[in-house]
Amino acid sequence: MSNHDVPGSAPRCWSRLVGEPLPVEHAAELAQTFKALGDPARLRLLSLIASHTDGEACVCDLSEEFELSGPTISHHLRILREAGLVTGERRGTWIHYRAVPARLERLSDLLTPTLITAEAVAP
Amino acid sequence: MSNHDVPGSAPRCWSRLVGEPLPVEHAAELAQTFKALGDPARLRLLSLIASHTDGEACVCDLSEEFELSGPTISHHLRILREAGLVTGERRGTWIHYRAVPARLERLSDLLTPTLITAEAVAP
Repeated sequence: MSNHDVPGSAPRCWSRLVGEPLPVEHAAELAQTFKALGDPARLRLLSLIASHTDGEACVCDLSEEFELSGPTISHHLRILREAGLVTGERRGTWIHYRAVPARLERLSDLLTPTLITAEAVAP
Repeated sequence: MSNHDVPGSAPRCWSRLVGEPLPVEHAAELAQTFKALGDPARLRLLSLIASHTDGEACVCDLSEEFELSGPTISHHLRILREAGLVTGERRGTWIHYRAVPARLERLSDLLTPTLITAEAVAP
């Protein structure tokens, strides 16, 4: 993304999200991903999957640790998959889910404050 | 937050969000913030505010650059304020908005992959 490379012309360019106005075409895709994270159950599911042994979990694992029904968990997992935050691989009866580090890294990078200020360069 | 300090016991602790299961009480607050970012118009508004001269903007500035009506912009700004992503200060006729770097930094930090793996420590 171009706004990762350009520090921006504003005096205080403290975030890669905001170094320059976010293009419309990026906003829609990013908003979908943030919306997927905008639910407590999905945030906890993502956290449980990635904290699970070997970084993967199936609905059978999650049902044991989570207070939601299997179909509700599957619904939330579908949204996380569509947003690119988890992948699913069927092995035998179950789909095994893994979080996608590259996707989280991209979001993290976008929100990272860079604190490029006039003061920082020449105090 | 405790999961910022503890690398976790899973072999692959690649994100501070997922080093250990996210506590329920944190999930609700964080989900509200991600939900506020989960709208293309709000993402662009946040970006426009922080990219504006001196890092602040009023609705009058945003209306010029944005295709939404003043009341709609104000509605989105209220959601961003309630999520702690922007602050507003009334000066004269207008409220001047600024993004909140500390809030974005917290979200970024939470999503940062840390890549603490058994291989990285002892290959």
